[in-house]
Amino acid sequence: MEHFADRLLARMEATGSIVCVGLDPRPDWLPEELRSLPEASREFCAAVLDLARGRACAIKPQLAFFDDEPAAPEALARAARPDLLSVADAKRGDIGTTAEAYAARWLGARSPFDALTVNPFLGRDSLEPFVSVAEKEGRGVFVLVKTSNKGAADFQDLRLASGELVFEAVARLVSDLGKKLVGESGFSLVGAVVGATAPPDVVARLRELMPRAIFLMPGYGAQGGSERSIARALDGRGRGVLVPSSRALTFPWRAKDSEASAPADWRKRIIEELDRTNAVFRAERESSR
Amino acid sequence: MEHFADRLLARMEATGSIVCVGLDPRPDWLPEELRSLPEASREFCAAVLDLARGRACAIKPQLAFFDDEPAAPEALARAARPDLLSVADAKRGDIGTTAEAYAARWLGARSPFDALTVNPFLGRDSLEPFVSVAEKEGRGVFVLVKTSNKGAADFQDLRLASGELVFEAVARLVSDLGKKLVGESGFSLVGAVVGATAPPDVVARLRELMPRAIFLMPGYGAQGGSERSIARALDGRGRGVLVPSSRALTFPWRAKDSEASAPADWRKRIIEELDRTNAVFRAERESSR
Repeated sequence: MEHFADRLLARMEATGSIVCVGLDPRPDWLPEELRSLPEASREFCAAVLDLARGRACAIKPQLAFFDDEPAAPEALARAARPDLLSVADAKRGDIGTTAEAYAARWLGARSPFDALTVNPFLGRDSLEPFVSVAEKEGRGVFVLVKTSNKGAADFQDLRLASGELVFEAVARLVSDLGKKLVGESGFSLVGAVVGATAPPDVVARLRELMPRAIFLMPGYGAQGGSERSIARALDGRGRGVLVPSSRALTFPWRAKDSEASAPADWRKRIIEELDRTNAVFRAERESSR
Repeated sequence: MEHFADRLLARMEATGSIVCVGLDPRPDWLPEELRSLPEASREFCAAVLDLARGRACAIKPQLAFFDDEPAAPEALARAARPDLLSVADAKRGDIGTTAEAYAARWLGARSPFDALTVNPFLGRDSLEPFVSVAEKEGRGVFVLVKTSNKGAADFQDLRLASGELVFEAVARLVSDLGKKLVGESGFSLVGAVVGATAPPDVVARLRELMPRAIFLMPGYGAQGGSERSIARALDGRGRGVLVPSSRALTFPWRAKDSEASAPADWRKRIIEELDRTNAVFRAERESSR
């Protein structure tokens, strides 16, 4: 398959969107009309996926919500094609034959996913099996570098004796793993998860450390991430960032910690939120050029 | 359910074994006679599980090998009872509702697993949902602190500006999360994964930092971990360590990178290896008293 970064950037170009729709189907948040269905979560995700065609460049099913039905996120990834690429949000991290098993399962030739999120805590040898399968199969890997949650500060933000921060050390490894795996677009198949909650200057520093990585930047919307931070990761052509959003885009009626039920016109609300979000990032991309 | 640590220590007492049988059923390593069966991996694991009854205190299915059949590791955990406790080796790590979903799935009331391995890279708020469900349901959590692979050095071993190492910072969090969750045995439901490959003095330091944690110590056998390191984590009563072993115990004919096929008497070979390993650790436990 063609290089992952090239395929992703082509999708962004075609749709004019850098938005990735996160599919985290919390059962208790689903619209009333779906809840009685035997496969309510799948139905909801399939509906959102259809609304996202042409309005986003990718989907990101959160595997935690599908542990009992591994075929469901795969069916979504298949249904998404060719309009939307798909990122399996798994945050897997393990070693040796275990990492190989995960890599084969989620990035191998038979997987419909285009990319996978992985956790770097176990070090380089835990990431290499994923990168190796991704290279062979034209897929991508997004390594957690600086996450969007409060607890990210506990270890990722610690200052090292060398003077750099732990997440900078992770960023250097990501850059190193991906530097020879760059597509025609100039971006590597090894990307980085960087919270949109990071201050703009931190994002700029990470972009300096990882010039070839596509940044997957969660935290925009519900978690308070800013478009200013996201803008600092874009290159001079408005490229290089994928913005995932789950709660804000797919449950807009639950914004700002609201506990509201889905309104009857929930499909319209999701479309409006997608259009609104795309407009924000179109403006940012324009001004980055 | 009764406190996880108390249940585990009772099993160790009853069996005289601190060994946990890792179930990582690599399809290409299975005995010839099983390979043609429709569910070869499950059959192999079920056979090993039966051999382990009375010869080990727990099993540890590696979920990576069961991504397509999530019911299989659960069936093994159910079949193991009451002879063997079960640890789901998942190394999950995520935040918010995602961590809650994983915790409910693998540690909740309907799960047959007694404990789960988790990854601390995302910090305290990513671990709390797991600890909270474990507390409610009498289960355990093993947090990766210092893993047994070579890549562990890349981030876990980095020296911080404060003078301590990253894995020591993780150890302090593990200790803090678990200090109020101690059972009658004196051990906490929050345990730690510490490679048996760590030098004895490092293990001693980690025991100092985490006096209440049960150490899950992989790397003995195939990865070159030593019983001297394991001995340093035992308390004065020979307690506090669970030794998982997968390849060395369940595929002894593949020891030392051999590519041998399983011999006809593979069951006998596994029993011998279990007995031999138990004898090693019985001696260590005796001398620690």
